[in-house]
Amino acid sequence: MKNAIKVFAPATIANLGIGFDHLGLAIYGPGDEIIIGEGSEKGLKIKEIKGAKGRLPIDPTKNTAGVAALSLLEAIGAKDYALEMSIHKKMPIGSGLGSSAASAVAGVFAVHKYLRTGLDVSELLPHAVKGEQIASGAKHADNVAPSLLGGMVYIRDNQTLDYKRIYFPKGIFFAVVYPEISILTRDARSVLSKSVSLENAIQQAANFACFVTAANSSDLDLMARCLDDRLIEHQRASLIPYFNEMKEIAMNKGAMGFSISGAGPSVFAMCFNQIEAENIAEKLQSFLKGKKIQATTWVSDINNDGAYLF
Amino acid sequence: MKNAIKVFAPATIANLGIGFDHLGLAIYGPGDEIIIGEGSEKGLKIKEIKGAKGRLPIDPTKNTAGVAALSLLEAIGAKDYALEMSIHKKMPIGSGLGSSAASAVAGVFAVHKYLRTGLDVSELLPHAVKGEQIASGAKHADNVAPSLLGGMVYIRDNQTLDYKRIYFPKGIFFAVVYPEISILTRDARSVLSKSVSLENAIQQAANFACFVTAANSSDLDLMARCLDDRLIEHQRASLIPYFNEMKEIAMNKGAMGFSISGAGPSVFAMCFNQIEAENIAEKLQSFLKGKKIQATTWVSDINNDGAYLF
Repeated sequence: MKNAIKVFAPATIANLGIGFDHLGLAIYGPGDEIIIGEGSEKGLKIKEIKGAKGRLPIDPTKNTAGVAALSLLEAIGAKDYALEMSIHKKMPIGSGLGSSAASAVAGVFAVHKYLRTGLDVSELLPHAVKGEQIASGAKHADNVAPSLLGGMVYIRDNQTLDYKRIYFPKGIFFAVVYPEISILTRDARSVLSKSVSLENAIQQAANFACFVTAANSSDLDLMARCLDDRLIEHQRASLIPYFNEMKEIAMNKGAMGFSISGAGPSVFAMCFNQIEAENIAEKLQSFLKGKKIQATTWVSDINNDGAYLF
Repeated sequence: MKNAIKVFAPATIANLGIGFDHLGLAIYGPGDEIIIGEGSEKGLKIKEIKGAKGRLPIDPTKNTAGVAALSLLEAIGAKDYALEMSIHKKMPIGSGLGSSAASAVAGVFAVHKYLRTGLDVSELLPHAVKGEQIASGAKHADNVAPSLLGGMVYIRDNQTLDYKRIYFPKGIFFAVVYPEISILTRDARSVLSKSVSLENAIQQAANFACFVTAANSSDLDLMARCLDDRLIEHQRASLIPYFNEMKEIAMNKGAMGFSISGAGPSVFAMCFNQIEAENIAEKLQSFLKGKKIQATTWVSDINNDGAYLF
């Protein structure tokens, strides 16, 4: 590819138990890489997709990265530019780690950097959301925003994309475990009861509010006490094999908290330090192995960089 | 009264719409004053109660301030001390402004200061909660904690009294309007539906979380957008005459938000500055007057002092 550049958008842990549909943070390691360069004909073309085992469409109007990129290209009056993209998926699809969000962000960020749009990174958000929307069916920015901007972000309103980045203490590490089973986001949604008790709703709100301010002031013990999801986790846990056993292992090993990443099946343990996170990741992987379930693990602290240009 | 001292505990706005049962802040103006001094016989005696029109029991084992004071006296092994209290209620009872919490806090704070307990103020909280509990029937610290500690406080867990004080921007003023009608807390509770939609629960959690962090970072516009209660306000509004009309007046006059204080009937407009708050208080008072409803108003910014010794 002529004059090509390479960008990367990281995977994300969304929901974090207490912040369902409104909270997410970026991690290091998994994510999407896109190489973008001069194309041979008018318009955007996706040349190849690596690492997706043929599961993603090559047509840019149907591909998450393509739709996000096209949305930005249209907005800046550049949709006739001859552009070519090569997508390298460096993370599992359908894992609950924001795979489609990473694609959408990488797509729009690639165009942004390649054409030097001069836009503020935050202005890319609506385009990335549009891309992610074709994959997930819903307008949610809780994976897209942290993948793009880095750090921990909550989206106050997913319709207007009213969001805020919040400081998250650097020393906290996540042990992320992806049991290689598949959960469809729509199944993960359909198990959720449409109504909840006022009491649990109110306690969830308090925990969410407390978690973000505790993070802001590096009050780690309080953060740990807040990680107590009353609305979602118990409903979705049944979709993830050995969820309760894994949680028990992690909590016994001293995790600050343990819950489901996004719609699952990935789970995470939030840990006071890196060594603890590494121990828990190893422990959970070998536990699942004993149950004949293949699992991939990552250990990461918060990724404040978000999408970047190599 | 011999060797007497005088303390004051301020009124509070609890709930603030989005923080039902978990959020409160102290204001200047209304509150409870207690004079405590040497008694003539063993034990605690309430000598007189002013400003309550005979509505509060003089028996210390039944009086909110008395119960709170006795709880502390017992804890420090001083229940046989000869003490006398005179309570001056400088705020309306049953107004939704934390009248019983102010009594409880003033009671426990009076003993604390009089006997120089050496305790940290935060250690008084459980005793004040005990006092408030006999008035409200429930264990809630969302009025008691800000009245005692000052500022904005949220209670993550009302059972364990896990709380946190949060910075609240100084320039914001509240127009507080108390329409002189009476609502019993138990009526205000009984109108609440026991279940809510997951969607509203999730949006409420996001608004609450966003509100406290926006306050923390003095993001006033975001605070204003967060003041959007999806769970409680519409259910309780019917108990307050002309609630919707008052809200419209306040919002049209540029208020950041408008909602019910505690269980009502007091309402508050949160305002970008003092002049706006004064205008709104005046406007609402004259509006209610036109409807033949007597109202008292206060204008205050956040009271970071909490309970104090004169």
